[in-house]
Amino acid sequence: MGYAVGLMSGTSLDGVDAALVDISGENEKTKVQLVAFETYSIPAETLKRINQVLSIEESNVERICSLNVELGYLFSDAVKQICQKAESETEELEFVASHGQTIYHLPNPGHQQFSSTLQIGESAVICEETKTTVVSNFRERDMANGGQGAPIVPYSEYVLYRDEKRTRLLQNIGGIGNVTVIPKNANLNQLIAFDTGPGNMIIDELCRYFYQKEYDHGGAYAALGTVNQELLAELMAHPFISKSYPKTTGREDFGNEFTKQLLAKWPMAANDLIATVTEFTAASIAENLKPFIDSETDLIVAGGGSYNGTLIQMLKAQLPDVHVVIQEDIGYSSEAKEAIAMTILGNQTLHHKPSNVPSATGAKNSVILGKITYYN
Amino acid sequence: MGYAVGLMSGTSLDGVDAALVDISGENEKTKVQLVAFETYSIPAETLKRINQVLSIEESNVERICSLNVELGYLFSDAVKQICQKAESETEELEFVASHGQTIYHLPNPGHQQFSSTLQIGESAVICEETKTTVVSNFRERDMANGGQGAPIVPYSEYVLYRDEKRTRLLQNIGGIGNVTVIPKNANLNQLIAFDTGPGNMIIDELCRYFYQKEYDHGGAYAALGTVNQELLAELMAHPFISKSYPKTTGREDFGNEFTKQLLAKWPMAANDLIATVTEFTAASIAENLKPFIDSETDLIVAGGGSYNGTLIQMLKAQLPDVHVVIQEDIGYSSEAKEAIAMTILGNQTLHHKPSNVPSATGAKNSVILGKITYYN
Repeated sequence: MGYAVGLMSGTSLDGVDAALVDISGENEKTKVQLVAFETYSIPAETLKRINQVLSIEESNVERICSLNVELGYLFSDAVKQICQKAESETEELEFVASHGQTIYHLPNPGHQQFSSTLQIGESAVICEETKTTVVSNFRERDMANGGQGAPIVPYSEYVLYRDEKRTRLLQNIGGIGNVTVIPKNANLNQLIAFDTGPGNMIIDELCRYFYQKEYDHGGAYAALGTVNQELLAELMAHPFISKSYPKTTGREDFGNEFTKQLLAKWPMAANDLIATVTEFTAASIAENLKPFIDSETDLIVAGGGSYNGTLIQMLKAQLPDVHVVIQEDIGYSSEAKEAIAMTILGNQTLHHKPSNVPSATGAKNSVILGKITYYN
Repeated sequence: MGYAVGLMSGTSLDGVDAALVDISGENEKTKVQLVAFETYSIPAETLKRINQVLSIEESNVERICSLNVELGYLFSDAVKQICQKAESETEELEFVASHGQTIYHLPNPGHQQFSSTLQIGESAVICEETKTTVVSNFRERDMANGGQGAPIVPYSEYVLYRDEKRTRLLQNIGGIGNVTVIPKNANLNQLIAFDTGPGNMIIDELCRYFYQKEYDHGGAYAALGTVNQELLAELMAHPFISKSYPKTTGREDFGNEFTKQLLAKWPMAANDLIATVTEFTAASIAENLKPFIDSETDLIVAGGGSYNGTLIQMLKAQLPDVHVVIQEDIGYSSEAKEAIAMTILGNQTLHHKPSNVPSATGAKNSVILGKITYYN
């Protein structure tokens, strides 16, 4: 094929990830080479407006309508900048694959509600601004097929990480934790993937609350604290942790509301609380991964959480028989993982090929994900 | 190509229009034959939820997320039913072209807002339910190219109505009135199209208020009333009426708020008020069309308003030198017009061909409209 840009803007709102790749082939024969990667920060004013539409109380149809286009321009800028960094032109791209900003995810609808998800960041704006065909909105079709629309990266992980002799557990720690299990010598139907529970979401929220910091840099605060076992036991009793897969979670379960209640109920020293919720992330991951571990297992940790040394130590302690590595150490940049994944999915879409993993999402069938906005 | 279904669900919320057509060719050589048409009513509960998300106060991100999918199912049912009526299967369709329900249109953004539009009715749901490729979201690309995203039907009108010897004014009277001017022997760049002002929106709202009826059947109420010239003059002074094209309007200008203020300021007999706003629709159309009229001009009226006999009489009186016909009398069903237009646009998209009309929307270029959700 040629050059493509993958864009990911996650629930943690820590920036727009842009990966410029060289991609060719399709299905199992897809080849991807990372050319350049960067995370572009979201301007404070835009961030404010994203947070408005994330809230039931502050969101409204006008704000969502306008922000959809505003984020289209933000994502376009990310494409332009990553191309500039690699000294190439956006017109030379074969396509842009954009995840979009998730502003709501409703996999388990209530009365008179429908199973649904909503990503914004207008593809027509990206198409127009970058003069490139855009593939977007990857989650909806899987949900329409009975899936949860998440996780979205397993197909790309299958293409990139499958090994004949070793079981590979790909644990991403973003706002939420999610894993893809690729058993040794697996075919696509044997993949299992699901959300494990909180990733950095609670940790970050506490750092903002106690220290006006966006996150626990390197896990320093957690390292200074002591885990409160009583609170940890209560956290681990959250029904999501022991729920069987496929399962997905988000801000609905572990967002601001959750942290607010935690602070109200457990008045503790800041670092002890941060240490405990960090252990909660590690323990909930370990609890969910244990059934898949054999003697030849690699745990490959990616996402912002892979830079939290305390969290990684806790994970190693929880899983002594597993070979734990940081994704960045074995090749692809940890941060670039999801943006690269978007290009693999977008490439499949342009070839009219499926890229969901039914065993991971719970969908009935393999289906083509995404919508295409053709530039020409 | 083959069979396709076009779906239109307009701002008047009077149902989902579904047109099953046989379509072939592309660009000027597109051939369309209407096979079956029907308007399917929107269930009361769904209608309630649409009205919620149309309102700044009652809309929120969760409601919009869920309703997007709910309307996807509603539109899928319309496709299934129109195919059943024609004794065919949805799997035999080449594509579905869905306009979606407009829940917001912001062509003239305020401070910290972006020029944008928002149509919902998830294409992935329609794709999955009908086992057919879907083209959707036709307005965004035109807006990203500097256009107003409206009007959307002129390209199809050019294909269907261009005449070498006669100027044709295609006036649609839905909730809003809009016209496409096709000068005799025109090329695509010579088309002019814009919203003329209110269509049935104020009339309908008054019928609901005074009579708990959805509309003025045949114009009977208006026929019994007397036009108040003072009020008419005030209405005609609305800045939108004399604004130069391209221009678009909607509920923002002539919706519930407008009618509420009208009722408060002008306490009159019900039928006199209905007669006056009906004349307002006729006069605002006439005022906007006058510059384009020559000795060989046809005014072809379509939309729900074409069945309002009083409104048609008023239009004829306003434009004595024009040959006024109802679209239904010259071929295509008046109601089916916009749904058929969607199939012409969708067909262009699937051929990677443009279908906006820059002279109508104000866009800088001819661009490919829409997003494609491939079934296979």
